Amino acid sequence: MFDGILKNVWDKKPLVHCITNYVTVNDCANILLACGASPIMADDAMEVEEISALCSGLALNIGTLNSRTVLSMILAGRKANQLHHPVVFDPVGAGASSLRTRTAKDLIEKVHCTVIRGNGSEIRALFQGACDTKGVDADAADITTEENLDAAVASAKAFSQAVNAVIAVTGAIDIVTNGQKTYLIRNGSPMMEKVSGCGCMLTTVIAAYCAANPDQPLDAAAAAVSVMGLCGELAFQRMKQQNAGTGTLHIALMDAMSCLDIETLDRGIKIEER
Amino acid sequence: MFDGILKNVWDKKPLVHCITNYVTVNDCANILLACGASPIMADDAMEVEEISALCSGLALNIGTLNSRTVLSMILAGRKANQLHHPVVFDPVGAGASSLRTRTAKDLIEKVHCTVIRGNGSEIRALFQGACDTKGVDADAADITTEENLDAAVASAKAFSQAVNAVIAVTGAIDIVTNGQKTYLIRNGSPMMEKVSGCGCMLTTVIAAYCAANPDQPLDAAAAAVSVMGLCGELAFQRMKQQNAGTGTLHIALMDAMSCLDIETLDRGIKIEER
Amino acid sequence: MFDGILKNVWDKKPLVHCITNYVTVNDCANILLACGASPIMADDAMEVEEISALCSGLALNIGTLNSRTVLSMILAGRKANQLHHPVVFDPVGAGASSLRTRTAKDLIEKVHCTVIRGNGSEIRALFQGACDTKGVDADAADITTEENLDAAVASAKAFSQAVNAVIAVTGAIDIVTNGQKTYLIRNGSPMMEKVSGCGCMLTTVIAAYCAANPDQPLDAAAAAVSVMGLCGELAFQRMKQQNAGTGTLHIALMDAMSCLDIETLDRGIKIEER
Repeated sequence: MFDGILKNVWDKKPLVHCITNYVTVNDCANILLACGASPIMADDAMEVEEISALCSGLALNIGTLNSRTVLSMILAGRKANQLHHPVVFDPVGAGASSLRTRTAKDLIEKVHCTVIRGNGSEIRALFQGACDTKGVDADAADITTEENLDAAVASAKAFSQAVNAVIAVTGAIDIVTNGQKTYLIRNGSPMMEKVSGCGCMLTTVIAAYCAANPDQPLDAAAAAVSVMGLCGELAFQRMKQQNAGTGTLHIALMDAMSCLDIETLDRGIKIEER
Repeated sequence: MFDGILKNVWDKKPLVHCITNYVTVNDCANILLACGASPIMADDAMEVEEISALCSGLALNIGTLNSRTVLSMILAGRKANQLHHPVVFDPVGAGASSLRTRTAKDLIEKVHCTVIRGNGSEIRALFQGACDTKGVDADAADITTEENLDAAVASAKAFSQAVNAVIAVTGAIDIVTNGQKTYLIRNGSPMMEKVSGCGCMLTTVIAAYCAANPDQPLDAAAAAVSVMGLCGELAFQRMKQQNAGTGTLHIALMDAMSCLDIETLDRGIKIEER
Repeated sequence: MFDGILKNVWDKKPLVHCITNYVTVNDCANILLACGASPIMADDAMEVEEISALCSGLALNIGTLNSRTVLSMILAGRKANQLHHPVVFDPVGAGASSLRTRTAKDLIEKVHCTVIRGNGSEIRALFQGACDTKGVDADAADITTEENLDAAVASAKAFSQAVNAVIAVTGAIDIVTNGQKTYLIRNGSPMMEKVSGCGCMLTTVIAAYCAANPDQPLDAAAAAVSVMGLCGELAFQRMKQQNAGTGTLHIALMDAMSCLDIETLDRGIKIEER
């Protein structure tokens, strides 16, 4: 499954423009290289349009937003829209501050996002205007479980239709939907929460997969989510084998991404279509 | 020793707001996760008060200060003061430039700091107004040794009383004092200086420990200093066993923090009360 | 070979001021520590001259340039020039945007650079005014091979003479020239491209080597290029032995730098003088 998606990434080696937070930016650059793409980080308003035009995809992340970089995100996003490059948006901490919620909503209005990826609380904040997120992690009430899965899928589909974007709500069970077709993905390890930036990294990988597969954003996003989750599982196994901790988990995650092959994905993927 | 301090961190999983330098920010986020807390990095003046209000502790670090982020530090610090959240301040490079010395002093005047952590040169620059630090490492003359220990303790106590904060002067021998009671800690490895950001990481861990133990800042700070030192020792042992270098040391430090338990701390802690 | 260069670094432990991009800044700090130097990152215009005066070398990198930090680069560069400190410049992405090309040229005019290090496309953009780089990696047409080596050397020498700087064009074959004498270095591994920031790290190591050997910039730069390439080879070997990926490669590179000794360099160096 997703063989063609992955092969396109490896063949095309897409260049992905990232305007992202300074906390996890190095991991974003390295995970892009590990997945077969190339990163370029550039956030000055004077060059973002030119840089984005060189690339085939754009990843936007408001994890450490400020007025200077938000302007650059909008400029880069509009240029990417003009050129029909996929734009993947990560509304980090939407709901945790009014600045983040407002900025995220504004960005979605001004830039057409191909994919929006966030945790349950961030997506709810954008869709329902809720403003009670407790930081950059999802609130317990927003975590998708088998019990609330139907409601979570319905909500993701409705949001997808409202903003005309693929929505990826990641958590214990990941939901990826284009409003019509929905994938549920049960890969991943709870320990991934103990490595800062797994969400940010996933966002850039989605951008790479979409850049190499511009006509299949749903499948590209679902493939990236599955791959990242599986890499987290493989990394967790190595951490356990080595009786190690989260430093090793971090490195093993990068290793797993750079070593991934189709057979490993086919054997490990836990995906269901709804 | 410090069982209760650590258990509170693990139970409460405090959310710590960090306004810190971009050099070591990823390590700060990951060490917070490793020690049982959660990080949120946010430095825009328009949101720092709101973000800090969500958290239970604040870490401020001037390692790559600029006028934009210094303003945010003061806004966040005052909000944390209002809400009685612990504020931990790391005056990176105080004494190395007049901007840093002036900013650090100004911040201490405008924000009540619960704990100030620095090396001997930084603390001396703040206390004595000395301006001859040679960078971000302590000058040889400012390193605490068995020979100058009494004078160093007296100076730390006097500074603590002057600014009404717990002072943590870290180095070969760490001094943690609230002006009355003083801990001397002999954990750590000289090799930790070969990993960028051990001081910055410690500052955020102190913030996490204080956030979970708001009524015991002295013991919380001393526990964090001991834990960090011990993790450095464990990391150094693994580096040696694997015949490896400072890249491995870096990862092993994170591993040690994420795997730490009370028994390991009790066995390894080298602390003395004065 | 280069014994004296390396011993000077280890003896003098030079403090290197870096104004560099936020993507790879942590790696730059750690590789400086690993090679025997010390880093200080400071980019605010109000302190860069004072900080640079404390140091014995300056590394400038426009990987994530903006107007604020470009001004700081020029201020720091001029101060370093006044004090006869070596300045090493990395024109990341020159040719990829007009802002980068213009800024890089402007910086070379306003600051005398001791060494300029870039890939073939970046150096060509600066020398020939070409503006068609496809990102931060070299275009295929700009990669030095045995076939185009003579032309590449001639071009590097001409650029060196034009700007009165040592030029280091890194790639499959590295060229380091002062316009008269030229070194060709064949160390390194193609896998180094899969770790973000190997070029940025090399730039800071060159700055450290020049800082400790201010009268020998050509040999200092060639030594740094050789050392970095050899460390990449050693790291690649460990990655293969462990059947691991690029996360391990990244850590192993840092390990190799921190463990390097003269014997290993003498055994592994692949250098030729022209």
